[in-house]
Amino acid sequence: MNIPQTSFPRVVIIGGGFAGLAVAKGLKNLELQVVLLDKHNYHTFQPLLYQVATGGLEPDSIAFPLRKTINDLENYFFRLTKVLKIVPENNKIETTIGELDYDYLVIATGSETNFFGNKNIQKYGMEMKSVPQSLNIRSLILENFEEALLETDLERRKALMNFVIVGGGPTGVELAGALAEMKKGILPKDYPDLDIRTMQINVIQSSNRLLTGMSEKASEKAEDFLIKLGVNIWKNLRVLDYDGTNVKTNGEDQFKAGTLIWAAGVKGATINGLKAECILERPCRFKVNEFNQVNENKNIFAIGDVAGLKSEKYPFGLPMMAQPALQQGKHLAENIIAQLEDKPMKPFVYKNRGSMATIGRNKAVVDLKKIRFQGVFAWFVWMFVHLFSLIGFRNKAVVFFNWVYNYIRFDRETRLIIRPFKNKNKESF
Amino acid sequence: MNIPQTSFPRVVIIGGGFAGLAVAKGLKNLELQVVLLDKHNYHTFQPLLYQVATGGLEPDSIAFPLRKTINDLENYFFRLTKVLKIVPENNKIETTIGELDYDYLVIATGSETNFFGNKNIQKYGMEMKSVPQSLNIRSLILENFEEALLETDLERRKALMNFVIVGGGPTGVELAGALAEMKKGILPKDYPDLDIRTMQINVIQSSNRLLTGMSEKASEKAEDFLIKLGVNIWKNLRVLDYDGTNVKTNGEDQFKAGTLIWAAGVKGATINGLKAECILERPCRFKVNEFNQVNENKNIFAIGDVAGLKSEKYPFGLPMMAQPALQQGKHLAENIIAQLEDKPMKPFVYKNRGSMATIGRNKAVVDLKKIRFQGVFAWFVWMFVHLFSLIGFRNKAVVFFNWVYNYIRFDRETRLIIRPFKNKNKESF
Repeated sequence: MNIPQTSFPRVVIIGGGFAGLAVAKGLKNLELQVVLLDKHNYHTFQPLLYQVATGGLEPDSIAFPLRKTINDLENYFFRLTKVLKIVPENNKIETTIGELDYDYLVIATGSETNFFGNKNIQKYGMEMKSVPQSLNIRSLILENFEEALLETDLERRKALMNFVIVGGGPTGVELAGALAEMKKGILPKDYPDLDIRTMQINVIQSSNRLLTGMSEKASEKAEDFLIKLGVNIWKNLRVLDYDGTNVKTNGEDQFKAGTLIWAAGVKGATINGLKAECILERPCRFKVNEFNQVNENKNIFAIGDVAGLKSEKYPFGLPMMAQPALQQGKHLAENIIAQLEDKPMKPFVYKNRGSMATIGRNKAVVDLKKIRFQGVFAWFVWMFVHLFSLIGFRNKAVVFFNWVYNYIRFDRETRLIIRPFKNKNKESF
Repeated sequence: MNIPQTSFPRVVIIGGGFAGLAVAKGLKNLELQVVLLDKHNYHTFQPLLYQVATGGLEPDSIAFPLRKTINDLENYFFRLTKVLKIVPENNKIETTIGELDYDYLVIATGSETNFFGNKNIQKYGMEMKSVPQSLNIRSLILENFEEALLETDLERRKALMNFVIVGGGPTGVELAGALAEMKKGILPKDYPDLDIRTMQINVIQSSNRLLTGMSEKASEKAEDFLIKLGVNIWKNLRVLDYDGTNVKTNGEDQFKAGTLIWAAGVKGATINGLKAECILERPCRFKVNEFNQVNENKNIFAIGDVAGLKSEKYPFGLPMMAQPALQQGKHLAENIIAQLEDKPMKPFVYKNRGSMATIGRNKAVVDLKKIRFQGVFAWFVWMFVHLFSLIGFRNKAVVFFNWVYNYIRFDRETRLIIRPFKNKNKESF
């Protein structure tokens, strides 16, 4: 793929997410060649995808060009490609644009939606792991309302205005809250000829509380907030199948919904050539040791969502969130430097800085190590942390402006169907 | 299409561009029912499409949700649809979502790219009349550079970095300037392993000067500015054919280019059912009288790009630009009100407020009625006028911020391939 051979050791990083960028940044100004690979030419700030899906933020403000992150660094290369296979015995990878040798390989491919093998849900349900997928959801929501306006069959109209979100983790909770705010502030004004009260937002959670990764107090408050916003919460219920309209569950409650958003599971975006470890109903990930080495390969590391680092406290691996990814990336850079200097590597220890989720206007829940709080202050903390974590000053400024504007005006102005999702093969743009 | 029948007369407006919105706004608070139809659910600010295509602005900041423009007005309805046919004898239209009767019909469908029947150019060339089309150009430019990096055939690599813009009107000139600035400030940093000096930007103009709609001084200065930015200007040259690489012209100069952008002509987006008038090499438009009535139909009006209002000064009709559209829309609203009040309609007279084009940083040309100027001040005037004309405070603010940021940082950060254009059928996102 046209990367010059030098006398410097080559570090190949697959994936420009939180983990991949953290390790790339940690390696600058060394006698190393760094090659960053990604299937997109931009970094995606995944925690805010739900705001793109609900018309609150423009997609370009949560994406950042990957070339810009490294374009002032010596001996750094970026290639837009998808890695097809790892060949550890030859220290090389195979990609859509050719082969590449490595001295150190860093797998930071993140995660993808886990449909647990259900082909129907995969076909008809929506996922939200990338910018294009979020834009598809944005289009579908709006297209469903345009169609509902014209629908004379009342049951079908109701289904078009019925939203089922499967999964009560942060993604499901945040998306449900944002939809509820659209229902309250935007849709009645935009569709005065529809009875928006018939719109339903359902969150279906398989366990007995929302936000299982957080404290019980946070779960309770999040449920409270959602119920106040008019969201229906279904606990201890599982979605078994979906045909585009009928949602089949394992309980008595069945649903008819034009939109089903699947936020019930992710799995590591593993790559062929290395054995991944899958445990029933748990995400497949690469098993790594305390140095993030994969399956005892000395020079292959996995970090972030794709890495399954088990410990007593985390028997199924670390949570698949930004924090572990960032910490692992930073730590791995230090360990690679140690190796170059013939010093011993240090084991990685995860520092849980806490977690948080926002439900809507003035409503969030925050669990820190020693303190837990909910409500307006939590909401400000959530916004501050997310704004601060966005890459690039321009993105921070545009997101900040949009938030202030949306807050003051009770508005979400990017409700644009720029690329229609429904019947997308029928009309060419 | 589910629009209630009332005792009020119904005005149907086809198209939510400058003209359509101007007439819609002029009709508020009257005993009228207003139905606005558009094939998109947003208004597009076309004069800034070239900045979306070149990564300077996010698409969502030059689009505005049409429902929001009317959602506080009584008796206004919006429907997302494409009009298929007008049946003047029955006062009705046929659309993709059913039929609709009208008392007054306003055709404000704007214009579309005119390939003058050349199927190859239509197939392989890029057009830039809508947000999705601009995003396609943005993707293609970036994808071509990613491909150039990998290309070992030097001639093919050169072609991938060769841009041909056909047409030296405002669109061609502004796009060429923006590309030249990418070449100068962005691409050498993003692609240090490519020799960006081999990138060529060509503007091919069939007549003997650029910006034929403006003064000779403006043409001269625009050409000057472009040449200083490194753009190649080819005058008195016509593009005859294009196969995706080879650009065939009627002169001695032939080109090999991976990107051809066709900005050499538009035509009225006419609708079946009414006779349109086409003059050889001139755009087809609906012939209208001084009241903007089409073909002597008393209650069918055409305004904006689709209306061919001829006068002594404009034997081929008014220029296809925002100003005539806005003025005609405002005027037509007054004439419809006059009709309701049984007063006579007033003939439309176009007031030419001047025209302008920007070439790049600190470089623009402005022709006003009595004064013409070029350079930095012209550039500020251009920015002020465009910012002021954008719909919505949020859009104004985001565009303004991006301009300030891009100016200070010499940057264009939305260089994102969010929806790949090339090989688009190969990978699904």
